[in-house]
Amino acid sequence: MNAVSLLSHHELIENYFKANAFKNQPLELYEPVNYILSLKGKRIRPLLVLAACELFEGTIENSLSTAYALEVFHNFTLVHDDIMDQASIRRGQATVHEKFGANSAILSGDVMLMHAYQYLLQAPKYAVTSLIKLFTDTGIQIVEGQQMDMNFENRNDVSESEYLKMIEFKTSVLLAACLQSGAIVANASLQHQQFIYQFGLNLGLSFQIKDDYLDAFGDEEKVGKIKGGDIRQNKKSFLLIAAFNKSNEEQKEQLLHYQLLENLDEKVAKTLQLLKDLQIDSFTLNTADYYFNLALKNLEAISIDDKHKYSLRALADAINNREY
Amino acid sequence: MNAVSLLSHHELIENYFKANAFKNQPLELYEPVNYILSLKGKRIRPLLVLAACELFEGTIENSLSTAYALEVFHNFTLVHDDIMDQASIRRGQATVHEKFGANSAILSGDVMLMHAYQYLLQAPKYAVTSLIKLFTDTGIQIVEGQQMDMNFENRNDVSESEYLKMIEFKTSVLLAACLQSGAIVANASLQHQQFIYQFGLNLGLSFQIKDDYLDAFGDEEKVGKIKGGDIRQNKKSFLLIAAFNKSNEEQKEQLLHYQLLENLDEKVAKTLQLLKDLQIDSFTLNTADYYFNLALKNLEAISIDDKHKYSLRALADAINNREY
Repeated sequence: MNAVSLLSHHELIENYFKANAFKNQPLELYEPVNYILSLKGKRIRPLLVLAACELFEGTIENSLSTAYALEVFHNFTLVHDDIMDQASIRRGQATVHEKFGANSAILSGDVMLMHAYQYLLQAPKYAVTSLIKLFTDTGIQIVEGQQMDMNFENRNDVSESEYLKMIEFKTSVLLAACLQSGAIVANASLQHQQFIYQFGLNLGLSFQIKDDYLDAFGDEEKVGKIKGGDIRQNKKSFLLIAAFNKSNEEQKEQLLHYQLLENLDEKVAKTLQLLKDLQIDSFTLNTADYYFNLALKNLEAISIDDKHKYSLRALADAINNREY
Repeated sequence: MNAVSLLSHHELIENYFKANAFKNQPLELYEPVNYILSLKGKRIRPLLVLAACELFEGTIENSLSTAYALEVFHNFTLVHDDIMDQASIRRGQATVHEKFGANSAILSGDVMLMHAYQYLLQAPKYAVTSLIKLFTDTGIQIVEGQQMDMNFENRNDVSESEYLKMIEFKTSVLLAACLQSGAIVANASLQHQQFIYQFGLNLGLSFQIKDDYLDAFGDEEKVGKIKGGDIRQNKKSFLLIAAFNKSNEEQKEQLLHYQLLENLDEKVAKTLQLLKDLQIDSFTLNTADYYFNLALKNLEAISIDDKHKYSLRALADAINNREY
């Protein structure tokens, strides 16, 4: 395996996605679906499905419907989350509810979730029930994680461990499930499935912590979101929770005061400065690295020739080194 | 089989529902789920599952998780539909979004859909994939039906056949799928599955047309909804579509004029009077009867001893004779 493999995975996915754009009726229901799926995402989740399928020497083509199912599901969660967060921009473009209205966003999201199951049903027969079981368990955890996230908004005493549990549910379990799904399609042993799931969990934690970092300290244009979006919304990110835990009484009061500022640019600038004073930027990156290294150890522990691990390792590195 | 059977089905269902009330965390996510499921519904869909399972001599207890899945799914659609329709009352109580907020209604609805799959996965092994396939196809049709319904709101030229297609998708396919699901759990032949599905489709059409009738002409207290809710919202019900198709130019203008009235009580009273003048009330009941009789013929065509058909026939009669 070499660099060509990762590139060709991406091509396989984009070709499959194009061939499976929704042509169903009524148009009003499916236009928002095709819209959100056509926004240039990084396709991390389907790439993880293919890479895990490759790792366990499965037939890559057999994993494409599953990869699509998981990307459609992920986009369903984005559509509904964006309504709840009242977000107006996603991947540099208008969010679905902004463009088509909240009712369309609710209903098109619902149908995406069901089409995700439709695509899982297209997997090889031996894999279908396991895939659907894993997918359903995972989907429930993700919604529970989203509710935890919403609950945190009204609290100033969220601990780092509570936060990590929340992002494990909201983000990591899906990356882990993508990997295990690829392994299921490849007919990997249950033990191998569990190892790769664990790798995904740690990769996911690293991914989400990095995401929180980029929201505050990333390049606005590359990220495709308004800088400091989490700060603007008083969102409990890893940075803010760490800041509360590391700050003295005076700094705590400052942080709480900034949350009330009505001038959003001032709010972002002042909060970012305090985060830097508290060295939350480097602390956050170090924490992301910690989980990334755990993930790499999980991957090393899988008793499969390193040459098969290339795609997955490259993908993990790409996630870790991304600037957006 | 006798009257005891139908009663005991209801008890079996309520006991199973009670034992399976959601105790999961976070509470904020599951409280709305338990709330909507505890509102006194007629449990028509789970009763249909059990009755079909009985018809094909399956083990009733094996169909309870499937029956629950379909009722949870049905309530998911109610929760999301009520947001979209901005409905404030459901079964005589506050709707979920009214009581818990729109975000909770979106998210709790989402998790209900996934828990429906979770319960389908508990069916006997031989049945799981067929059940999930049928359920997914059906769910997609229902959402498509809801979108058609929304599209109709902006049109005054909806034909009766378009309307029937919409309610087939929005309502009938679920009743049909409940029946087929009971047949699948009973391991019935594919042909028997198709017959009972067809019975459900016709029963569903009759059911929905009657529902439209009751919304306008039913007893407000028994129905548990504000009288003339469809008329207040300018909803394209079977009555209004039939009225447009049966009215002369002057009456058409009156109907359109009534839709603009800001005094809702006046709007309902005037529209109801015109519907009566056009004899839409009796026409609607006759149409419901037409589909009900088709359903009965479908049931008669199933080559199974009549004694096994008792529960299903009793349930169909109950649906047909209901006043709410």
